[in-house]
Amino acid sequence: MKTRAAVATAAGKPLEIMDVTLDGPKAGEVLVEVKATGICHTDEFTLSGADPEGLFPAILGHEGAGVVMEVGEGVTGLKPGDHVIPLYTPECRECFSCLSRKTNLCTSIRATQGQGVMPDGTSRFSTLDGDPILHYMGCSTFSNHTVLPEIALAKVREDAPFDKICYIGCGVTTGIGAVINTAKVEIGATAVVFGLGGIGLNVIQGLRLAGADMIVGVDINPAKKEMAERFGMTHFVNPKELDEDIVPYLVNLTKRRGDTIGGADYTFDCTGNVTVMRQALESAHRGWGESIIIGVAPAGAEIGTRPFQLVTGRVWKGTAFGGARGRTDVPKIVDWYMDGKIEIDPMITHQLTLDTINEGFDLMHAGESIRSVVVY
Amino acid sequence: MKTRAAVATAAGKPLEIMDVTLDGPKAGEVLVEVKATGICHTDEFTLSGADPEGLFPAILGHEGAGVVMEVGEGVTGLKPGDHVIPLYTPECRECFSCLSRKTNLCTSIRATQGQGVMPDGTSRFSTLDGDPILHYMGCSTFSNHTVLPEIALAKVREDAPFDKICYIGCGVTTGIGAVINTAKVEIGATAVVFGLGGIGLNVIQGLRLAGADMIVGVDINPAKKEMAERFGMTHFVNPKELDEDIVPYLVNLTKRRGDTIGGADYTFDCTGNVTVMRQALESAHRGWGESIIIGVAPAGAEIGTRPFQLVTGRVWKGTAFGGARGRTDVPKIVDWYMDGKIEIDPMITHQLTLDTINEGFDLMHAGESIRSVVVY
Repeated sequence: MKTRAAVATAAGKPLEIMDVTLDGPKAGEVLVEVKATGICHTDEFTLSGADPEGLFPAILGHEGAGVVMEVGEGVTGLKPGDHVIPLYTPECRECFSCLSRKTNLCTSIRATQGQGVMPDGTSRFSTLDGDPILHYMGCSTFSNHTVLPEIALAKVREDAPFDKICYIGCGVTTGIGAVINTAKVEIGATAVVFGLGGIGLNVIQGLRLAGADMIVGVDINPAKKEMAERFGMTHFVNPKELDEDIVPYLVNLTKRRGDTIGGADYTFDCTGNVTVMRQALESAHRGWGESIIIGVAPAGAEIGTRPFQLVTGRVWKGTAFGGARGRTDVPKIVDWYMDGKIEIDPMITHQLTLDTINEGFDLMHAGESIRSVVVY
Repeated sequence: MKTRAAVATAAGKPLEIMDVTLDGPKAGEVLVEVKATGICHTDEFTLSGADPEGLFPAILGHEGAGVVMEVGEGVTGLKPGDHVIPLYTPECRECFSCLSRKTNLCTSIRATQGQGVMPDGTSRFSTLDGDPILHYMGCSTFSNHTVLPEIALAKVREDAPFDKICYIGCGVTTGIGAVINTAKVEIGATAVVFGLGGIGLNVIQGLRLAGADMIVGVDINPAKKEMAERFGMTHFVNPKELDEDIVPYLVNLTKRRGDTIGGADYTFDCTGNVTVMRQALESAHRGWGESIIIGVAPAGAEIGTRPFQLVTGRVWKGTAFGGARGRTDVPKIVDWYMDGKIEIDPMITHQLTLDTINEGFDLMHAGESIRSVVVY
């Protein structure tokens, strides 16, 4: 079939909107009509050329929602008409990782996904001239139609609006999941969130959901304060306005009644800056504070600290897709949105069409958007 | 009273054996006759001058066992004749840290302990001329008699031999505790232990106790293999004998049936070398592998890695005194020794007297001892 897509032809160039050819689903695969897709920093990371594993030409986009149009041979869990969210972290429920019960990082199709192809080693996308175009993160939601393996689709309720729940395909789940799956924050905890962009806001609402007592947000942009407070932030810190180092300031700020030390129970890096990652670790409480890395660092960048920080009880962790098992947990998060337990609407600051998708990257660069969503 | 002690008069000099004056216990304190003490790398770290927080003159030693001789005002939990193990990590059961239930790092007397004095800010030790001598890690077991706060003494059964259970005061508890308290290793786990000295051997027997399936030991000294096997090591790796990098080798070695990735469920650094600490982290399994730092690094040394290692599910932790609460857990470990659940005797390779204590440091430098114990 023919469909319309925004194609990343080369690193550093704007996406090109064009008609492309999409082959139908093979065994175990599903054809999806994408109804909406968010534009995420990871798409920008790859498009910019900063991603050392980025491949071109490819159809980017990994934060979508849509409807099943056709299923390939052997697909039993989905049928045409089902509403779905594509999963860049699939959930096969059969690989060593899925069966470990210890991680969400399913490995069944990891190798081919990284190469921009379906599990059989080929791409379903090509130019009208027949030149192959690669998939991206197994999703390619910057195309009006796409093909995914059945294990990379979460079936969700049909009354949920595509232009909002697409954000659950990455940002919402990553932020909330980091709190509830990775950190397992308990009621009454103290927390510091570094970086109040889309991920940071979702960490904050995850902390509110988890019943945290103190939710400190850190950002060098004071304009971020208002929205973060709306999602549950209790204290705002702008490192540029401090007369002292950020770490001792935060350690003291998070000192509770009876405590002689201070430091947060949980800290989250949502910046991708390795210096901030270290500050996040060192702001965690001696003895038990856990620091969770969510941000994606530049290629080759390294984190460092004195081992004494860990020997005295701090824990350094990271999270991918918020530790969520896509097929199991994503439908629940859609329910939470529909039930009003979490909010999404205020974070979708801009709505675009496929033809104006490049404006979404401009808005991101200018720091004007939290999330831009393309509606097909 | 007068007692006999090995005094560290200055960094880098041998201990001087001499008579010293010891004041009796003040309120909340206990006078202990030390019956035996191990010589630990941490004593050597301070004596050498490498410890930036080392103070002189001081009476070192923190791995002892003895008998209560006298108790100060208000001491209710101990009486003369009780057998005790001094605790460099006390357990007050009242501070914010103890009450958190999340850490063993009691903070009630942390500040004064670091300054080499009792909680009231003064030392009980002095020269016969009246010049003060500092305490060390709140223990000073290189003295035949010493004074400690009640909260820094674990009461243990009276039929346990001092010259063996003194080792529970540091090395045994640190190694076994890292496995059962910090890592919480489960039956069937795979593990890699870097460094097969006294701590490493105790990690290995902790892993055996915890029911680990695969216990890989890593050391550049092949002479360590036999003893480690005696304590439960199942595979020995000498990095110097490998044709490839240690990390991919270990990741492959720990690959189980059905796994396509490899890596150990738990890795332990018992070397204090920051390069090895990184190898330990990166040898842990993607998705869930935890790496525990036990070794003490040189002053100023830093650990580093790419944050991707954590984002893909590895966890970096550390442990102090094996995460054990001294008064609660140490008596249990003494029971385990007496019941034959753990072994200590083969690790006590040398027995010395206070007069020959400096030979213990020589044996340590030469790599000839696992543990030297001074018996008074």
